[in-house]
Amino acid sequence: MSISINSNFDAGSIVVHDISNPQNIRLGIRNDTNSEFAQWFYFQINGIKSQQLSIHFENLATTAYPEGWNNYNLCASYDNQNWFRLPCSFENNTLSCTFNSSSNSIYLAYFEPYSYQKHQELIGFANLHEICEHTILGYTAQQRPIDLLTIGKQDAQYKIWIIARQHPGETMAEWFMDGLIKRLFDKQDPISHALLSNCQFNLVPNMNPDGAILGNLRTNSCGVNLNREWLVPTIENSPEVFYVREKMLSDNVDIFFDIHGDEALPYVFTSGCADNQSFSQEQQQLEDAFEHIFQLINPDYQTEYGYPKNHFSVESSSVATKWVGNHFDCLAYTLELPFKDNANNPNIKYGWNGYRSQLLGQDLLTAIHYILKHN
Amino acid sequence: MSISINSNFDAGSIVVHDISNPQNIRLGIRNDTNSEFAQWFYFQINGIKSQQLSIHFENLATTAYPEGWNNYNLCASYDNQNWFRLPCSFENNTLSCTFNSSSNSIYLAYFEPYSYQKHQELIGFANLHEICEHTILGYTAQQRPIDLLTIGKQDAQYKIWIIARQHPGETMAEWFMDGLIKRLFDKQDPISHALLSNCQFNLVPNMNPDGAILGNLRTNSCGVNLNREWLVPTIENSPEVFYVREKMLSDNVDIFFDIHGDEALPYVFTSGCADNQSFSQEQQQLEDAFEHIFQLINPDYQTEYGYPKNHFSVESSSVATKWVGNHFDCLAYTLELPFKDNANNPNIKYGWNGYRSQLLGQDLLTAIHYILKHN
Amino acid sequence: MSISINSNFDAGSIVVHDISNPQNIRLGIRNDTNSEFAQWFYFQINGIKSQQLSIHFENLATTAYPEGWNNYNLCASYDNQNWFRLPCSFENNTLSCTFNSSSNSIYLAYFEPYSYQKHQELIGFANLHEICEHTILGYTAQQRPIDLLTIGKQDAQYKIWIIARQHPGETMAEWFMDGLIKRLFDKQDPISHALLSNCQFNLVPNMNPDGAILGNLRTNSCGVNLNREWLVPTIENSPEVFYVREKMLSDNVDIFFDIHGDEALPYVFTSGCADNQSFSQEQQQLEDAFEHIFQLINPDYQTEYGYPKNHFSVESSSVATKWVGNHFDCLAYTLELPFKDNANNPNIKYGWNGYRSQLLGQDLLTAIHYILKHN
Amino acid sequence: MSISINSNFDAGSIVVHDISNPQNIRLGIRNDTNSEFAQWFYFQINGIKSQQLSIHFENLATTAYPEGWNNYNLCASYDNQNWFRLPCSFENNTLSCTFNSSSNSIYLAYFEPYSYQKHQELIGFANLHEICEHTILGYTAQQRPIDLLTIGKQDAQYKIWIIARQHPGETMAEWFMDGLIKRLFDKQDPISHALLSNCQFNLVPNMNPDGAILGNLRTNSCGVNLNREWLVPTIENSPEVFYVREKMLSDNVDIFFDIHGDEALPYVFTSGCADNQSFSQEQQQLEDAFEHIFQLINPDYQTEYGYPKNHFSVESSSVATKWVGNHFDCLAYTLELPFKDNANNPNIKYGWNGYRSQLLGQDLLTAIHYILKHN
Repeated sequence: MSISINSNFDAGSIVVHDISNPQNIRLGIRNDTNSEFAQWFYFQINGIKSQQLSIHFENLATTAYPEGWNNYNLCASYDNQNWFRLPCSFENNTLSCTFNSSSNSIYLAYFEPYSYQKHQELIGFANLHEICEHTILGYTAQQRPIDLLTIGKQDAQYKIWIIARQHPGETMAEWFMDGLIKRLFDKQDPISHALLSNCQFNLVPNMNPDGAILGNLRTNSCGVNLNREWLVPTIENSPEVFYVREKMLSDNVDIFFDIHGDEALPYVFTSGCADNQSFSQEQQQLEDAFEHIFQLINPDYQTEYGYPKNHFSVESSSVATKWVGNHFDCLAYTLELPFKDNANNPNIKYGWNGYRSQLLGQDLLTAIHYILKHN
Repeated sequence: MSISINSNFDAGSIVVHDISNPQNIRLGIRNDTNSEFAQWFYFQINGIKSQQLSIHFENLATTAYPEGWNNYNLCASYDNQNWFRLPCSFENNTLSCTFNSSSNSIYLAYFEPYSYQKHQELIGFANLHEICEHTILGYTAQQRPIDLLTIGKQDAQYKIWIIARQHPGETMAEWFMDGLIKRLFDKQDPISHALLSNCQFNLVPNMNPDGAILGNLRTNSCGVNLNREWLVPTIENSPEVFYVREKMLSDNVDIFFDIHGDEALPYVFTSGCADNQSFSQEQQQLEDAFEHIFQLINPDYQTEYGYPKNHFSVESSSVATKWVGNHFDCLAYTLELPFKDNANNPNIKYGWNGYRSQLLGQDLLTAIHYILKHN
Repeated sequence: MSISINSNFDAGSIVVHDISNPQNIRLGIRNDTNSEFAQWFYFQINGIKSQQLSIHFENLATTAYPEGWNNYNLCASYDNQNWFRLPCSFENNTLSCTFNSSSNSIYLAYFEPYSYQKHQELIGFANLHEICEHTILGYTAQQRPIDLLTIGKQDAQYKIWIIARQHPGETMAEWFMDGLIKRLFDKQDPISHALLSNCQFNLVPNMNPDGAILGNLRTNSCGVNLNREWLVPTIENSPEVFYVREKMLSDNVDIFFDIHGDEALPYVFTSGCADNQSFSQEQQQLEDAFEHIFQLINPDYQTEYGYPKNHFSVESSSVATKWVGNHFDCLAYTLELPFKDNANNPNIKYGWNGYRSQLLGQDLLTAIHYILKHN
Repeated sequence: MSISINSNFDAGSIVVHDISNPQNIRLGIRNDTNSEFAQWFYFQINGIKSQQLSIHFENLATTAYPEGWNNYNLCASYDNQNWFRLPCSFENNTLSCTFNSSSNSIYLAYFEPYSYQKHQELIGFANLHEICEHTILGYTAQQRPIDLLTIGKQDAQYKIWIIARQHPGETMAEWFMDGLIKRLFDKQDPISHALLSNCQFNLVPNMNPDGAILGNLRTNSCGVNLNREWLVPTIENSPEVFYVREKMLSDNVDIFFDIHGDEALPYVFTSGCADNQSFSQEQQQLEDAFEHIFQLINPDYQTEYGYPKNHFSVESSSVATKWVGNHFDCLAYTLELPFKDNANNPNIKYGWNGYRSQLLGQDLLTAIHYILKHN
């Protein structure tokens, strides 16, 4: 049986250059739909039992984040459920990996996927709880629902908004939401219980379902980077932002988090609103408090490494965090999780992964509880 | 928030006539891709909390099996995982259901779905076992893999072939395979252990992945009913049959089962090869033995109700079971599971469902063990 | 840290001769309470990390079943939950085992234990089901409850009685009950569902809780072998039999099984009532039917190897099966499971164990269903 | 079937005054072995289906903590696994409870039990991990092992000691250890990972196995309150303290926690070493830091309610925490969990229970991580 490559499934993506020689399988990265961005891949190779494989991802200079391939290791799984890392080398714009498969099939991906079916299961799980309401805010260009979970009472003192996967290939962001949401439903957890006494959580676990299913890294099906659409979103090209933003405007926002993955930096870090002209001293105090407490609770988070000042520069005001921080004068953060590993706490077997993202998501609740109580 | 209907997901399908009035939601059934067949539906309704809904599926006279709606009850789920039945009435070619939803969202389907992701998980689970080899036999018209699981040694005395979901909307067939496959991997199960000492199982849990994902009942993406293609399949229109049949021809078949769902009859039953001109006395004895033992083990199976003689009439020789029985002169059966319920053993809450199909699949192994030992 | 041995827990039992030399640990088997029987052991060794151990069980000629040590392999567990076998040799009335422990502690036992807490969990699990009533029939000499589970309607056509662990060290008997009981509560299982339409099950998962906790093989706390007490049980010495027998007499018995373990024979087999003077042709037909069907369903069961005719000889009429078969003129069986392995289907890693006993217990229901339907 | 009461199992304890009238079941509390203390009870009632029961615990003025019965609600379970609270009233030294049982059996207990088998499972689970060593430090008066789990490297910078259940009826203390230990083995948890880089944990999940199995609240089998034995423990009467203390002296202690339950106060609180003459400013700073951080992480903990100064008065120096704090000049705390509920965060259905204790145990690791990092 000869080798074949299959990416025709949810979030699948790869370009096959040449698979005739198992010792020299040559692949490329596909562009996002209607876009120049290219970084995500996810595929299955079949017909590889009992042979050594060498896989080369070529021409990576043209990908969105060429520096993302330095010290990057492939995510792999024999069953599409349990993922581990395969060591790689990166040279001459080529990422290379040589390994022996114990099975006839293996999945490879840029990061541990969070499938649309897992998304449906998460929304379904939430839907079973009386304190939660699942609302479809609107539909994407490809007619997929924009799912909002509202947990807690409508007349709560604080409105917390947390959104994830504006960039659909940043699947760690939905793993993070998964951990956070499941903790929030634990009635015996003292943090969840305390939070739901005075907070309403508005959660969008996947801002970009079209892009997620299409196997895009950054854009929706229209080729739009949603995180540059918050000043003037349109129903036509960025309905995901349009409907969420409308709901925010009608409901208010007291704390905002936008969860992302970073291709290059091997750290968990945040980017707040200090670049905003409107940035207030109160916002600064809230950011200080958050950074203090979140490091205490989860040392995977740190504040040493992160974006330089003015990272978002010109487009700044159209970024979700900047726009929310400016408009609602509240604590607003972009939280970045690594694609690679956490260099401060490396795990050779798994790298950064879905589970560690879930743990971090659980811990965010403790940090929010602190912020609300101590400010 | 107004009511909306969403079917843009794996196997989703519905036609919306009018959803403006919750008391009179009017829907229709979509045709299979490139086909006149229409019977399957699967969708989510949102925005329904705390109100009574009346749903009407209209114009069912033009569906593939109008008699399928008599005494049929809707499959429903709040979380897309746990399914139950909602009682319906059928009159004037309209299926009607009135109920109160406890959540803001509910899924409704013709039968408990078996998603493509569950299919990937099943193949992935199998792939973890050393005694199993996952082979992609070829690709469908839409470039999805035709997955074969081979369990047991290549030089085994008996080659058992079991295929399912030629008709992709008959999801109970893959639930059946799921139960069978998981039992087969239990090394301490004495039936599985005995079978793998002299059998090789060749299992195709989903013969029609394109049709499954498209939300078709009967056809693949070309509008072809695969179970009429076994005489002269083509790579172009019925590659699913072409590749499986090629593999059978090169490997031999000693026992064959083709797992299906029946829209009309509320029973589990089989259809063998008695209509074949080549039907031998030995085949008759094997069929008698099978029917005897399978009823003993699992009383959900029965032989009183089923297809009349010559059910497949003219097209007969192009049906999988008939072709296999004729060509390999072996025991070959179509096994039908109900969409409705088992009228001999009704379960008001669940009707016939995925779990009961799994149990039946487990029990098939015991019946095969008997056949091989006692003939 | 030096080596120590601990058996002061539920069912623990061992005699320590000498543990000063890890290469020559010398142990003996303790007698049952107030009895000459000796065969069971269960203990933990601590302080053994990273060294080779040689363990010798001495003077086995005086144990109850010296032939039980031939081809017997030790049951071992690092966590008291997952059990495996350690290969042994038997020579000069000494059972010897040499191995390297990967942990500082290991449990060793004659057979995979079924603890009193597991018993409580099983009764508790049953107690949650509406169709089940948990009754304490009376108390043992040490004031432990004699637990009866009654599943199904009081006015059912057939009264099925199944009892286990008259000999408390035969823990496989309660594993068997565990599998049977859990299947019986599965409302979607067609066998369970059919059985409960016309049967009432009366189940005593542990006839001898005192003996079980004391770590006895054969007797209760009075030193009495319960399976010789069915003619004239006494509240003083055999209350376990007294109360169960009273309940049988007031309620009737249509089918009876008494589940046991056999120390010597490496097979699953039954012993019926053919030795009874009252043995009828109808009983013979029922036994024939049972033996036929049970082999079909679970090939771990066989009829070639078993007890010789008149195995129970003089005491015969005081044995549970003989007494029940004689008194109620019904199908009555002693079902024996091996301590060693099933020589027809050996499993080097686990030998015969709890899980295989559970599977056999599940399958007994199918056999009972057949007997009732076809006779 | 008449009502019977059964307490002959692990930790079972009750005195039956009169059970002839279901409307007026009268019970009493048994003394600890060789002791005047009385507070714990745990028993099963059988024969109660479909009738209203009124249960009265009498003469509670003579129990160890009469104020423990004010606002106390009974712990109840139908399966001995899932526990809930039954509302009670307390008047005239009698605790009364009236309820209808949905089953024929129910368990009632002073608090959700943590059985000896669960203890064995916990030690067994730990024993599977390479980074853990299970050592039996010695044996109790009744010859049960004193189990120590050592997790982390021998040459670690910090030696953390945590012990629980000196008072055996304070089962919440072992639930707490259960949560803590399982988190510590999670290699992907950033707190556990960071702690094990420079700490060795020495954990005694159950200091008093004899008392636990005997169903005592406060004492071991000799009638000794272990938490008054730390100045001069004896192998004869307090071997549990003797062996643990010896190991501490030979290994050193950098941080110490002793986990307890409090019968009267409906709060989680700590008692440190401020009463010690040797109490240093550094110890004060460590206590301040701990109290600060632990409240942040788990709001079930608080510092408003607790013991008055000099709570332990005369015996003070023989209390574990006082002795350790004095001898090792380190952070040493008694952590108290309620038997009743947490009045600051009440849960009517469960009260304080095992699960909430597990969550608190998990969170203690975060607090220890903070202390070590910030001092």
